Amino acid sequence: MSPEAGGLLTLAELEEAAAGLRGVAVRTPLLESPALSDAAGVPVYLKLENQQPTGAFKLRGAWTALRRLPEEQRKRGVITYSSGNHGQALAFAAKRMGVRAVIVMPETAPAAKVEGVKRWDGEVVFAGTTSEDRYEKAMLLAREQGLAVIPPFDHRDIVAGQGTVGLEILDQLPEVTDIAAPVGGGGLAGGIAAALRARQPKVRLTAVEPEGAAALKAALAAGRPVRLERTFSVADGLLPLAVGAIPFLHLRDFAHSVTVSEAAIVEATRWLCYQQKLVVEPSGAVTTAALRSGAFRPSGPTVLVVSGGNVDPAAIAQLA
Amino acid sequence: MSPEAGGLLTLAELEEAAAGLRGVAVRTPLLESPALSDAAGVPVYLKLENQQPTGAFKLRGAWTALRRLPEEQRKRGVITYSSGNHGQALAFAAKRMGVRAVIVMPETAPAAKVEGVKRWDGEVVFAGTTSEDRYEKAMLLAREQGLAVIPPFDHRDIVAGQGTVGLEILDQLPEVTDIAAPVGGGGLAGGIAAALRARQPKVRLTAVEPEGAAALKAALAAGRPVRLERTFSVADGLLPLAVGAIPFLHLRDFAHSVTVSEAAIVEATRWLCYQQKLVVEPSGAVTTAALRSGAFRPSGPTVLVVSGGNVDPAAIAQLA
Repeated sequence: MSPEAGGLLTLAELEEAAAGLRGVAVRTPLLESPALSDAAGVPVYLKLENQQPTGAFKLRGAWTALRRLPEEQRKRGVITYSSGNHGQALAFAAKRMGVRAVIVMPETAPAAKVEGVKRWDGEVVFAGTTSEDRYEKAMLLAREQGLAVIPPFDHRDIVAGQGTVGLEILDQLPEVTDIAAPVGGGGLAGGIAAALRARQPKVRLTAVEPEGAAALKAALAAGRPVRLERTFSVADGLLPLAVGAIPFLHLRDFAHSVTVSEAAIVEATRWLCYQQKLVVEPSGAVTTAALRSGAFRPSGPTVLVVSGGNVDPAAIAQLA
Repeated sequence: MSPEAGGLLTLAELEEAAAGLRGVAVRTPLLESPALSDAAGVPVYLKLENQQPTGAFKLRGAWTALRRLPEEQRKRGVITYSSGNHGQALAFAAKRMGVRAVIVMPETAPAAKVEGVKRWDGEVVFAGTTSEDRYEKAMLLAREQGLAVIPPFDHRDIVAGQGTVGLEILDQLPEVTDIAAPVGGGGLAGGIAAALRARQPKVRLTAVEPEGAAALKAALAAGRPVRLERTFSVADGLLPLAVGAIPFLHLRDFAHSVTVSEAAIVEATRWLCYQQKLVVEPSGAVTTAALRSGAFRPSGPTVLVVSGGNVDPAAIAQLA
């Protein structure tokens, strides 16, 4: 579905997604952080999406997309080409629905990510080492086996599902003035933007990217999604070369873009673990990094979206 | 003050402690864990005391005791002989009050614990290697310098402060039927018992100890606190040789005692970190261990008190 066809997500679509997630995704808590509040001079809350059953917000979108598939398509199974948190989330959602999920992963995928998918009985297929390899393999298998493709972010139902994070924040903290969210493909930030546009457009949304993977910043400058030559960051969930068209539709003329350095991401990941006692993957720590580094300066009650926690704690200890 | 003189803590005392903690301790969230709920067959919530500014519930008692000291005593400063979370908590509380805190620690204290105290400007004094060495040194310095001694658990104000955990749980989950809390000296469990006795005595309190440090189990069998020959456990916050008299007054004829193996504590600590994305020290993981091992079988909505998170994540990765 093209964004032109769909336009902005409506409040009704977002609320239907939220209703569908009851009993599946966790209504994650907002945790006030006295240390961050003291440093920022405003109350700061963490929205703990690392507490989802699959360890990341991705479950919201994957479940919503799978649930909205026509029964006829869903029962034949689904496939995706994301090796990360979306792959785990889709496997989890498919298992709950009792349907097949095939996850195409690179031959170089770390064992932990492969196990994360298999834990929910996802079928792992290996294909090359590049995202193109995986995309082509997924399309081929989808045609051959009649599987529905569930992309990681550029899909209306995915963005609607992720947008339920925004609805929850508005319910949990009506006085919120600032929300910061990480941006990779833009599904999460785009969904939150949709929720804010529909319910409380004066809330300021800050979209945070690594300096080495600033696809939204480039898109906002160009007025359309642009494809970067390459991206790099310790925040391995934020490496898409371009933001999706549907997320961008919601973010343009709305979100404020900031970037954070690799050093700031590492510092925030370690700080969240050692001081805040939360296991947060670097991609989920970029919002905290933006606040702690001064790139993000909120004006009132603030929510930092902590998007996921799928990282080995031993790896956090070794970050430097 | 002897327990005979004071009797059970009253609801008014507990509520006064709670009022005094506003703006100092965090009203920690109850986090529902779908995975634990599925396994237990009842809704299971984690009370996240690892989210306190000092990383553990101990701040509640230390602050309450310090605040209730007569001004004349308080301004001369305080001292304690706990090298662990109580020492950090007292240093934090004293810094907030603008008074001296002296923490007597063993010569063998790990650097992390020393740093934890110095972080809040606590004055560290080293004394021998045994708890007797530390106790005697603290008493000596208290006399010499006119410092007030704030013991780690056997003190009415400490128990009142820790009991605010129980009040919060009753407010946050009125339908709770079961609460599990760790026991070392018994301050936390005793305080929760006080709150339940005062407000909702039908709630079942399960006190969890390591098999190698079951001082409450021994006390319940004997009808009075008894001193164990020795204690051992990876749960290094639960190693007192005896429970305190004031905690025991509240726990006897009320709390149900269960013990957990070292293997179960390690498993739970790792599970909380890898699956629940929470940094929890082994002492804080014993309640989860009791549930996951089957030692604790709740009958309805359940709260597991996660008492602290002061552990190096790298150490969690190495536990086995």
